[in-house]
Amino acid sequence: MDIAAILRDIHETVSQSPDRGTVADYIPELARIDTGRFGMSVVLADGTQHSVGDAARPFSIQSISKIFALALALGRLGDRLWTRVGREPSGLAFNSILQLEHEAGIPRNPLINAGAIVVTDAVLAGNAPREYLGELLRFIRAAAEDDAIHINESIALSESETGHRNFALAHFLRAHGNLQNAPHMALGAYFHQCAIEMSCEQLARSGRFLMGAQGHPRLVSPGRVRRINALMMTCGHYDGSGDFAYRVGLPGKSGVGGGILVIAPGRASIAVWSPGLNAQGNSKLGTEAVEMLARRTGWSVFG
Amino acid sequence: MDIAAILRDIHETVSQSPDRGTVADYIPELARIDTGRFGMSVVLADGTQHSVGDAARPFSIQSISKIFALALALGRLGDRLWTRVGREPSGLAFNSILQLEHEAGIPRNPLINAGAIVVTDAVLAGNAPREYLGELLRFIRAAAEDDAIHINESIALSESETGHRNFALAHFLRAHGNLQNAPHMALGAYFHQCAIEMSCEQLARSGRFLMGAQGHPRLVSPGRVRRINALMMTCGHYDGSGDFAYRVGLPGKSGVGGGILVIAPGRASIAVWSPGLNAQGNSKLGTEAVEMLARRTGWSVFG
Amino acid sequence: MDIAAILRDIHETVSQSPDRGTVADYIPELARIDTGRFGMSVVLADGTQHSVGDAARPFSIQSISKIFALALALGRLGDRLWTRVGREPSGLAFNSILQLEHEAGIPRNPLINAGAIVVTDAVLAGNAPREYLGELLRFIRAAAEDDAIHINESIALSESETGHRNFALAHFLRAHGNLQNAPHMALGAYFHQCAIEMSCEQLARSGRFLMGAQGHPRLVSPGRVRRINALMMTCGHYDGSGDFAYRVGLPGKSGVGGGILVIAPGRASIAVWSPGLNAQGNSKLGTEAVEMLARRTGWSVFG
Amino acid sequence: MDIAAILRDIHETVSQSPDRGTVADYIPELARIDTGRFGMSVVLADGTQHSVGDAARPFSIQSISKIFALALALGRLGDRLWTRVGREPSGLAFNSILQLEHEAGIPRNPLINAGAIVVTDAVLAGNAPREYLGELLRFIRAAAEDDAIHINESIALSESETGHRNFALAHFLRAHGNLQNAPHMALGAYFHQCAIEMSCEQLARSGRFLMGAQGHPRLVSPGRVRRINALMMTCGHYDGSGDFAYRVGLPGKSGVGGGILVIAPGRASIAVWSPGLNAQGNSKLGTEAVEMLARRTGWSVFG
Repeated sequence: MDIAAILRDIHETVSQSPDRGTVADYIPELARIDTGRFGMSVVLADGTQHSVGDAARPFSIQSISKIFALALALGRLGDRLWTRVGREPSGLAFNSILQLEHEAGIPRNPLINAGAIVVTDAVLAGNAPREYLGELLRFIRAAAEDDAIHINESIALSESETGHRNFALAHFLRAHGNLQNAPHMALGAYFHQCAIEMSCEQLARSGRFLMGAQGHPRLVSPGRVRRINALMMTCGHYDGSGDFAYRVGLPGKSGVGGGILVIAPGRASIAVWSPGLNAQGNSKLGTEAVEMLARRTGWSVFG
Repeated sequence: MDIAAILRDIHETVSQSPDRGTVADYIPELARIDTGRFGMSVVLADGTQHSVGDAARPFSIQSISKIFALALALGRLGDRLWTRVGREPSGLAFNSILQLEHEAGIPRNPLINAGAIVVTDAVLAGNAPREYLGELLRFIRAAAEDDAIHINESIALSESETGHRNFALAHFLRAHGNLQNAPHMALGAYFHQCAIEMSCEQLARSGRFLMGAQGHPRLVSPGRVRRINALMMTCGHYDGSGDFAYRVGLPGKSGVGGGILVIAPGRASIAVWSPGLNAQGNSKLGTEAVEMLARRTGWSVFG
Repeated sequence: MDIAAILRDIHETVSQSPDRGTVADYIPELARIDTGRFGMSVVLADGTQHSVGDAARPFSIQSISKIFALALALGRLGDRLWTRVGREPSGLAFNSILQLEHEAGIPRNPLINAGAIVVTDAVLAGNAPREYLGELLRFIRAAAEDDAIHINESIALSESETGHRNFALAHFLRAHGNLQNAPHMALGAYFHQCAIEMSCEQLARSGRFLMGAQGHPRLVSPGRVRRINALMMTCGHYDGSGDFAYRVGLPGKSGVGGGILVIAPGRASIAVWSPGLNAQGNSKLGTEAVEMLARRTGWSVFG
Repeated sequence: MDIAAILRDIHETVSQSPDRGTVADYIPELARIDTGRFGMSVVLADGTQHSVGDAARPFSIQSISKIFALALALGRLGDRLWTRVGREPSGLAFNSILQLEHEAGIPRNPLINAGAIVVTDAVLAGNAPREYLGELLRFIRAAAEDDAIHINESIALSESETGHRNFALAHFLRAHGNLQNAPHMALGAYFHQCAIEMSCEQLARSGRFLMGAQGHPRLVSPGRVRRINALMMTCGHYDGSGDFAYRVGLPGKSGVGGGILVIAPGRASIAVWSPGLNAQGNSKLGTEAVEMLARRTGWSVFG
């Protein structure tokens, strides 16, 4: 299978797409990104890496960071984490507060905003945000074997000034006793975590620990790898998770910056980036690109 | 891998389980089933079949029938089906009507009751229920290569007398213009479809077309197999779908009669039956049994 | 106070209104009514009656019938009725099913459809619908002192063929154990009750028992009069109840046929009819007419 | 009518009540209040005032302050206020966030917390909270003709430290563009407004402007008086508003501190205080006391 050729074909196809989606406008710093950008990178089980387009250009990983925070939290708390957050798809938008009121402050899963804030809060556990962020960066740098990965402070600042829905979620969680830290502390850590920047090349390398293949960084146990992948499959794209599973057939996690991390278990770690989003807030061309990749490679986990 | 030995271990373990769940009581005919029953059967890609316990005893497949009806509907309507039903997990109970009101009569997915009623209605398309049921039985019998599979009329009758929530759903769909047939016609077909009986041995054989392996009945295209499996993964266990994916890592569809059909793509078609249910209405010991099977065999699709 | 002159002014004003609202189209028989119609009639405490426009022309009272059924039910069951239905505004549309699912089949109040179906069911109590309807007609005829009041069978039939949302509500209530009679029996009675026809003159007379003034038919106790009026104030116009109280300041009950019965306690019983509806399903010009009447007469209960 | 005797009877009856309700515990300063307290005061249209029990003892008026803020806001903005907040009962708890998400940040009415925060924000309009609070105190002092009415700073501080649900509401409103001031500014004003203290005697006098009788302070127009009373009738007791209208038949506004202001249009302004609350968060004995008063006096507006 000639992955390089497949990536070139995908790049050419998406380049001609007339509808590139819409950039998220609620984070001012992200609203300025050029929707013409497109990058993709694939690390195979054998360790080779193939990339096309703007694959070396850093972008804001945003919600993809929830995967690394979740891995940290499971390492720290184990199954105790599940007393504070569920494992079910919510059927609602990424920033919905509806379900929280119905279910007494227990977010449905760790990949919607409310759940991810609880995960960050659980790892934070009274420490200063900078300690948490240092630990998270060390984890990601070890995963990618790249110490250049960093946080974009101006993005973090931009979010903390406009993130009123996230503040609403945090205060609501606190009102229900499901936030240990003060809302501005938990959110300070959360906004900085979301402001981590990586290129597709870095992101694909950082996802290798979820591939479950030999010869790659092993940061969590095989059982935990399976479970994180399962959560990405059922909850990784908010209320577009079912559609992503239907069309792509691989676990993935999207970010509002236009990136998606996708895992082909045993075979590949895949990163794609295109800033224009679809109606569910997931990268439009990024989703189409991994759909093409899954079809051409036969990597769908569903047969 | 000695599947027979693994099945024996599983059987022994579940036999000692003190908590066997609770039989569904809203269908009187099902409420009488002995929770002591347990059967399991596995058809491997090589065609061999291994079974334990009450694997030859027929039970009511109930919602597992939604998979066969969906396969028929996709064959008949193709992607037009998706104008009438979505592909997202609902985050709600199997018989919830909440989401229907918020989303103007379009059920979230074809595996919750409202969505399955739409699927049946779409295939029914003005024909008599008996024609539809004949076609569905032919499909299932061909899948299982077993003409003895039949409908239990007294179960169907029991449901039509007590199925007020399903009548509510059907009338609600009709009020929104998303039901072509009269509610009692669509539900007549639906209740009979749910009243199909199979043993674990029959059910495991009938699921082979979703395995995607050579030498088995091929009733739908490979692309459609992948998509049906994807829907089973994200939506097959109602508001317990995320948990099933997390614990088992395989696509599956449960029925309130205590059966579960589980697919290990490329490897096996698995049927399990134990009538006691958990809080989400899925077989309690059945779920535990396939969780053990997935762990022992390493068949999780997630690595 | 010259009520006749006030009514003439109101008639003239509404005659010039460019926007007359929209006729309900979900009951075919009602969809044909001419939106140009307008009638109004007022019975004062002294027994005099003043009318304008099409006040002698019968129309379908629809949900206004819920007031008479409620009076019957309270007479029959007393406070036991409140174990099956609440007394709070729902904040939702007249035919919403949302609240029922959240609150286990107990409708919020007796003036939304679900609650009114429970009220009818409670009075029906296993008897044939014709007995119930006979009793209800006797009550209304006694209230109006007019034996000509009757049920329009073709309207009742029209509703029973298209009333899928009401069937959904009835089956849902039954599924929760809050419907004693079979859904088609309870709804048969309910659809006929809604199909009672009265003119504004008849309707205003039939409402005198809620005025609480001497010399008029006294069909229920003064305490019950106050309570029925209170329910009309808080719940009589569905999710437009707050707006009606704000603008008019009098208890009232609207029907989808364009009629409204309004009570000025101690002073008057008022009926108005104009078939065009506003967004909440209440008569547009009818509401404007009683708003003018309340302003000109100073009859608001709020000072 | 001997109001003094009626008040003595009421006092005696409630003194013997075995169930006095439960003090709100989410505001620590309020949780310490003795549930044995009970006070009541009535100002009649003729200007005489009658009181019993702890009627001279100040308590925290909490949400009763929403009425005065609403009067200010209507004076300042007129009907423009209704572009930012509705006039319908919500059918939900006082601090629910559900409806806000469904209806894009427009609170249902100005008497639930979200709506009251919008009202305060609208009057605040960029000014310092202390200016707004000065104006509000001047309004209330003029209404009561008593300059001793003040804000309890320690209660205000207690709320601002624990009011996470209100912070969630404010951030949510801001995210929807329905909050002009920074959340902590709007809430600073709101928490101080809620921390105003009055005795029953002061509160009854401060409500005289809503009586609509001659010889009392006239702070708003008669039309506005009627409308404020209408909102109190339909929305003044959250999801207990329908029950209050049914039992008492008078417009009223409760506060979580156990106070209720009740208006008998044209007849009386009534204040009652008992700190123990019922399930809807309204004073339990206070509600019973005004129910008795309305029955004994025949003051219900409903006949």
